[in-house]
Amino acid sequence: MKILVINGPNLNKLGHRDQQVYGTKSFEQLLEKIHSFADVNDFEVVCKQSNYEGQIIDWLQESEIFDGVVLNAGAFTHYSYAIRDAIADTQVPVIEVHISNVHNREGFRHQSVLAPVTNGQITGLGFQSYTLACLAIKNIVEGD
Amino acid sequence: MKILVINGPNLNKLGHRDQQVYGTKSFEQLLEKIHSFADVNDFEVVCKQSNYEGQIIDWLQESEIFDGVVLNAGAFTHYSYAIRDAIADTQVPVIEVHISNVHNREGFRHQSVLAPVTNGQITGLGFQSYTLACLAIKNIVEGD
Amino acid sequence: MKILVINGPNLNKLGHRDQQVYGTKSFEQLLEKIHSFADVNDFEVVCKQSNYEGQIIDWLQESEIFDGVVLNAGAFTHYSYAIRDAIADTQVPVIEVHISNVHNREGFRHQSVLAPVTNGQITGLGFQSYTLACLAIKNIVEGD
Amino acid sequence: MKILVINGPNLNKLGHRDQQVYGTKSFEQLLEKIHSFADVNDFEVVCKQSNYEGQIIDWLQESEIFDGVVLNAGAFTHYSYAIRDAIADTQVPVIEVHISNVHNREGFRHQSVLAPVTNGQITGLGFQSYTLACLAIKNIVEGD
Amino acid sequence: MKILVINGPNLNKLGHRDQQVYGTKSFEQLLEKIHSFADVNDFEVVCKQSNYEGQIIDWLQESEIFDGVVLNAGAFTHYSYAIRDAIADTQVPVIEVHISNVHNREGFRHQSVLAPVTNGQITGLGFQSYTLACLAIKNIVEGD
Amino acid sequence: MKILVINGPNLNKLGHRDQQVYGTKSFEQLLEKIHSFADVNDFEVVCKQSNYEGQIIDWLQESEIFDGVVLNAGAFTHYSYAIRDAIADTQVPVIEVHISNVHNREGFRHQSVLAPVTNGQITGLGFQSYTLACLAIKNIVEGD
Amino acid sequence: MKILVINGPNLNKLGHRDQQVYGTKSFEQLLEKIHSFADVNDFEVVCKQSNYEGQIIDWLQESEIFDGVVLNAGAFTHYSYAIRDAIADTQVPVIEVHISNVHNREGFRHQSVLAPVTNGQITGLGFQSYTLACLAIKNIVEGD
Amino acid sequence: MKILVINGPNLNKLGHRDQQVYGTKSFEQLLEKIHSFADVNDFEVVCKQSNYEGQIIDWLQESEIFDGVVLNAGAFTHYSYAIRDAIADTQVPVIEVHISNVHNREGFRHQSVLAPVTNGQITGLGFQSYTLACLAIKNIVEGD
Amino acid sequence: MKILVINGPNLNKLGHRDQQVYGTKSFEQLLEKIHSFADVNDFEVVCKQSNYEGQIIDWLQESEIFDGVVLNAGAFTHYSYAIRDAIADTQVPVIEVHISNVHNREGFRHQSVLAPVTNGQITGLGFQSYTLACLAIKNIVEGD
Amino acid sequence: MKILVINGPNLNKLGHRDQQVYGTKSFEQLLEKIHSFADVNDFEVVCKQSNYEGQIIDWLQESEIFDGVVLNAGAFTHYSYAIRDAIADTQVPVIEVHISNVHNREGFRHQSVLAPVTNGQITGLGFQSYTLACLAIKNIVEGD
Amino acid sequence: MKILVINGPNLNKLGHRDQQVYGTKSFEQLLEKIHSFADVNDFEVVCKQSNYEGQIIDWLQESEIFDGVVLNAGAFTHYSYAIRDAIADTQVPVIEVHISNVHNREGFRHQSVLAPVTNGQITGLGFQSYTLACLAIKNIVEGD
Amino acid sequence: MKILVINGPNLNKLGHRDQQVYGTKSFEQLLEKIHSFADVNDFEVVCKQSNYEGQIIDWLQESEIFDGVVLNAGAFTHYSYAIRDAIADTQVPVIEVHISNVHNREGFRHQSVLAPVTNGQITGLGFQSYTLACLAIKNIVEGD
Repeated sequence: MKILVINGPNLNKLGHRDQQVYGTKSFEQLLEKIHSFADVNDFEVVCKQSNYEGQIIDWLQESEIFDGVVLNAGAFTHYSYAIRDAIADTQVPVIEVHISNVHNREGFRHQSVLAPVTNGQITGLGFQSYTLACLAIKNIVEGD
Repeated sequence: MKILVINGPNLNKLGHRDQQVYGTKSFEQLLEKIHSFADVNDFEVVCKQSNYEGQIIDWLQESEIFDGVVLNAGAFTHYSYAIRDAIADTQVPVIEVHISNVHNREGFRHQSVLAPVTNGQITGLGFQSYTLACLAIKNIVEGD
Repeated sequence: MKILVINGPNLNKLGHRDQQVYGTKSFEQLLEKIHSFADVNDFEVVCKQSNYEGQIIDWLQESEIFDGVVLNAGAFTHYSYAIRDAIADTQVPVIEVHISNVHNREGFRHQSVLAPVTNGQITGLGFQSYTLACLAIKNIVEGD
Repeated sequence: MKILVINGPNLNKLGHRDQQVYGTKSFEQLLEKIHSFADVNDFEVVCKQSNYEGQIIDWLQESEIFDGVVLNAGAFTHYSYAIRDAIADTQVPVIEVHISNVHNREGFRHQSVLAPVTNGQITGLGFQSYTLACLAIKNIVEGD
Repeated sequence: MKILVINGPNLNKLGHRDQQVYGTKSFEQLLEKIHSFADVNDFEVVCKQSNYEGQIIDWLQESEIFDGVVLNAGAFTHYSYAIRDAIADTQVPVIEVHISNVHNREGFRHQSVLAPVTNGQITGLGFQSYTLACLAIKNIVEGD
Repeated sequence: MKILVINGPNLNKLGHRDQQVYGTKSFEQLLEKIHSFADVNDFEVVCKQSNYEGQIIDWLQESEIFDGVVLNAGAFTHYSYAIRDAIADTQVPVIEVHISNVHNREGFRHQSVLAPVTNGQITGLGFQSYTLACLAIKNIVEGD
Repeated sequence: MKILVINGPNLNKLGHRDQQVYGTKSFEQLLEKIHSFADVNDFEVVCKQSNYEGQIIDWLQESEIFDGVVLNAGAFTHYSYAIRDAIADTQVPVIEVHISNVHNREGFRHQSVLAPVTNGQITGLGFQSYTLACLAIKNIVEGD
Repeated sequence: MKILVINGPNLNKLGHRDQQVYGTKSFEQLLEKIHSFADVNDFEVVCKQSNYEGQIIDWLQESEIFDGVVLNAGAFTHYSYAIRDAIADTQVPVIEVHISNVHNREGFRHQSVLAPVTNGQITGLGFQSYTLACLAIKNIVEGD
Repeated sequence: MKILVINGPNLNKLGHRDQQVYGTKSFEQLLEKIHSFADVNDFEVVCKQSNYEGQIIDWLQESEIFDGVVLNAGAFTHYSYAIRDAIADTQVPVIEVHISNVHNREGFRHQSVLAPVTNGQITGLGFQSYTLACLAIKNIVEGD
Repeated sequence: MKILVINGPNLNKLGHRDQQVYGTKSFEQLLEKIHSFADVNDFEVVCKQSNYEGQIIDWLQESEIFDGVVLNAGAFTHYSYAIRDAIADTQVPVIEVHISNVHNREGFRHQSVLAPVTNGQITGLGFQSYTLACLAIKNIVEGD
Repeated sequence: MKILVINGPNLNKLGHRDQQVYGTKSFEQLLEKIHSFADVNDFEVVCKQSNYEGQIIDWLQESEIFDGVVLNAGAFTHYSYAIRDAIADTQVPVIEVHISNVHNREGFRHQSVLAPVTNGQITGLGFQSYTLACLAIKNIVEGD
Repeated sequence: MKILVINGPNLNKLGHRDQQVYGTKSFEQLLEKIHSFADVNDFEVVCKQSNYEGQIIDWLQESEIFDGVVLNAGAFTHYSYAIRDAIADTQVPVIEVHISNVHNREGFRHQSVLAPVTNGQITGLGFQSYTLACLAIKNIVEGD
């Protein structure tokens, strides 16, 4: 089993960003956590990050070689109908994740234009949001 | 470790309800899945259900004997500011869960008045929403 | 044939309430009218009233022993998505009724969150709203 | 006793229209049902239909020779403030009816600009909406 | 000088209509007042009334033989963009009038979709609204 | 008979202001027109202007010595609920006037918070708006 | 092949209307262009115009003898839910056309209540909007 | 004189709740303050608390044996139209109170659906809100 | 102890104003009531009134010589962000009061732009609103 | 004559995308249809596709070597004000096209932020939308 | 060259006001900074402050003797359409300034009703906002 | 000192764009003006332009080697929450600039989603907006 993890704009600056919201752990630590979780749970994982909406759409269009996608689209979550369309066209499960609880932050973060076409969302649980999403995909694929 | 799982109005009718949205599995099967997941993962779980908003508030007020709460407030999710206040007063982690992807259903289900005061949300992943939420609480409690 | 008539909050105070809107007849007189109409039209009727949203949901969940439900949810009409879900789960016809013409009263009374999942609505016709609704259920059941 | 039944735009195409919403019965069958109900219940009925808003206003202005009006204004229901004014000027009872449950259809059908000035509304009960409305007028006129 | 006075839907029922809003004077008395004012002020006047939006558009399209139009479009004021377009095409001055003060009545009466393309509006001054509007046109035509 | 004409903020700059909207005539010419109209029509007139909301309220509170008030509140028209309250307290007729057609200008000018408590409004007829308003008051006072 | 072209209110005044928006060509020139296009492309065309909403509904109800309808409903486009229902009932393709680019004009012209039930829309291309729409119907009918 | 003090959901957790908003004093201390104020001012007081909307409605329906009601409906303040109806039916004065200044907290707390049918509101004055409300009722009853 | 009572626009006309809303007592009687209450409760009071927003801001800026301010800003309550800023800058407690229950009057009166920066509000209790506010300030100052 | 056809995000997946909305024909078939139409109608065509907003702006900035642009901006249609600005700067005609009828799909697709600055729009006519747009440009260029 | 600097309500209390937003420097220090900047840059400056909207309008009406106006209208920025009109009438450049970044403060501060008629705005740069605005006017006047 | 100036989409077409809004000066002239201002004021400046949102985010993420950023994000200003997040993460001052007065242009340009997280904004002052922003950064850095 092979999962694609896509991180959107500014997530590469984790740890540098507002530490009250995101904690002090870096993007590299996030990647480590995901990879070690994959090792323990016996699946492969590929992690990508981009600040370009078009690049994220390209990756989603090429995602059929994976068993599922874990997507943190960053701020694109709130207005990128183009990414939404790319998700809707994706044949494998897509789970939307957020590190922080977007619902107690600025108003514009309360709406996800992606959520209606994803399989599910995991929000506010820190780096766990990613590992739980991987687990969910694993269970979906294994028919659990 | 001991987790309280609270189900709100009409969830006791799972399996009888719109099967296109919720699948054919019954409320009893949900409880079984949660209990067997608790056994495997070595924690205790207490499951409650009520159609009364006041009862759910009472349970939240008495939740300090648990290590965390998994809450599917059903339709109360969308208007019960009284349950929101009870969550805000709760000392242990509260994770909001939904079986279906509320974001591709009727408009009124797109807003959760509870989300801003919960620790996180897991939505759209079927019965897995509950077990992943239990896992998340376990990890939080164990400092993961 | 057996019909369940459910009255929601404050309807037990009919006659005491604003008489310009509801007239001077009491809740007891409403019940009498419904029962005598049932006698004349040869069906059974059970009438219940509660100020508790949860109680009304419980009754709707147990309504399968009836041939239909006539529901005046009072002010719950305008915000109880939990009762809405209970109606949607109900297997027998549910008809929403209102004594007064809610559309020429306060703005909040103009929207019924229940209406989309009921079979129909009868509004503004005084106590007749109930008897006509009973008649409608009788005709539906008898395949008219 | 003599009742005027007014049907607005496109109702003459019943049975040709979206059969999932309106059923397969034709406009002629509706008229038959109303007339035979009138015979059984011993009142006279005159049925009119027009696609012209102005014509419907004219009929309402001339309605004083009837004991009441049953009005299905079709799509005019949602924007014709001119018909609303004509109803407000009408001296006899006017009951608004709809065949389908307008509240689970497109958003624009959820608001009736006529409702605040009618005596009541009967919605979603198929052809019965008309016959129950006639009955209601009969009872009002007979002081029931 | 020759002025066209157009009255829209339900104005022919003046005096029969809500007397608290419109007073007890009849439509005939309005016409008399306008005609006698025309006599005194030495201009011709033609008065028309219709409940049909299309008819009012036709009259506006044929208004070039007049020196100006006084228009009380009744409830069409609030939604007839078709009449608005007809006014915008009219070559002579058009003044919108209302008998009652529409701004202290129902909310829908607060907006006139016609006002932006008329020359001016006179509102709330009873039958005087018409005679002042005639005077205004007279002064405009006479270059006052 | 004695009429008070109140002009609000910036009207003292008429003629200097946007000439496409207001024409090239000055504030002094407006006053002249009103006074000469008063002479011809045999009534007294007092004209005041202020840029201070409080001053306009003071004048309205002292208006009982007049037979009526013609008020062009300028931009205060659109937000001064304090002037609205002063008008509501005024015992004599108050007519709101505007030189330009406010309904085809910026959006904020489309709403008058004063209109609901005035006797009527005359809008868009240039300086005539004032003289017609004086005439209207004269007719009201003389019981026309 | 036979196409029905329906023009709504005020289109008969083309050329007289605001020439900055609609150009200087007359309604007669529009009809000529459509007819000569029909000749060249070998189909029949019938052109009708009315200022009456009811008349347009009548025509749509009788359109089954045509292979398609090209409809410029003028200002009715923006509020006539009655015409919308008539289009929805029509068995042949209906294409909505506009001469001007309605999206850079007044706000009320930005919404078409008809568009959701038409086959398509062609907007802003002058008289070409009509001929392209005819071509589209021809291609649809011929299975292109 | 006898006053009923009703506290709604979560107020029993005062002191445990967000201390920045509510201070550190407990619910028991609130009750003590009210009772000792009653003693000093020579009236009787009965204090009740419930997390159930239905229970609060029941108490309001039985309030005629009191001279007035002081009501802190907690979060129900912002959506319980059912409690609103119960207040409207109440024969004795009802004063709405809030401990904190709800107007500088979350947006949903800015609107009280109860306020329009209460006699008055006292907000933001801590425990004093209750004692001043009692005093107000005392003065109303004593005709002050 | 010394309290400043500020009354905003039109409050000097109490008793002359709409007597159904404000009662028949005059502004002078209000002042008397406040002064005699001050005497009995042993504090000084200074009462001011102005129709000028700027004057009220000036008074608030000079309020540091008082122990607190009781403010009825009249209609300024609903739009004067300038007064709001002055209150926010004030070092002593400010309590907002209203004689009538603003929440069952016109819509614009339902929002107070001042409330978020005041200490509390007392509404709808007639002249008592002022005396209770004075008492509240006295208690705050005395540390009750 | 030379036309530039620009396709935005996800259109390269035509045929793979929701087939109920877009049909089963592939993006390659669309390109073939456009090219063969160009051959028959004797003009050159260049077709481009990108998932990058910035790339589409670049192409529009370089479009002066073409006689016109046919643009299907996909989901960017609904929020890319940057593309809108690029269109507004373009010297040649730009026609917006959509394959599906965007007006009977999700709400966010009902608004085009591009439409106000394009020459026209052709919507809902399948692949024909493109060929008709090419024809329109040809006619515009040839002065038809 | 001579510049008029106008400060609106409450700015005279700078330094006393919320120091987190405005810093600890006083109004006098602001005036000093502006005057010394004027000296260095060789222009004259006149600084005025008022809490009265009418006074600010008066000053703007008399501003033609200056080469430009720097205006910090304080809270009037957000609702004073009367000041907006005065700016629109002003013949010399007017630049709107704010000390704090109004866009990260309360919602009502996000909209400036003045901005559309000023020459430009400088916001959030502390006392520099004033000196940069003076510089901008100097450059405009000197044709830079 | 070294300042980064970032220009967003379509600004490279200055001078070609709508000259009524932006003037006739080209992008090259803007760059020249900035560079010569930098020379005179003794700081370094690097100017970049891109039509790609992702590129602008990349540049902001690498901006720590500069002392400040002057950002004209073009149309991205109005919807790019991704750029907003990048600004929020930036350690050096960021000042938002606009050449034209965006507040008197189309409605969508009135809101900047970037403004709340920038240090300040300078709008409407032509090319001066850039040089004043550079000056502001210089002063901030130099502790002025």
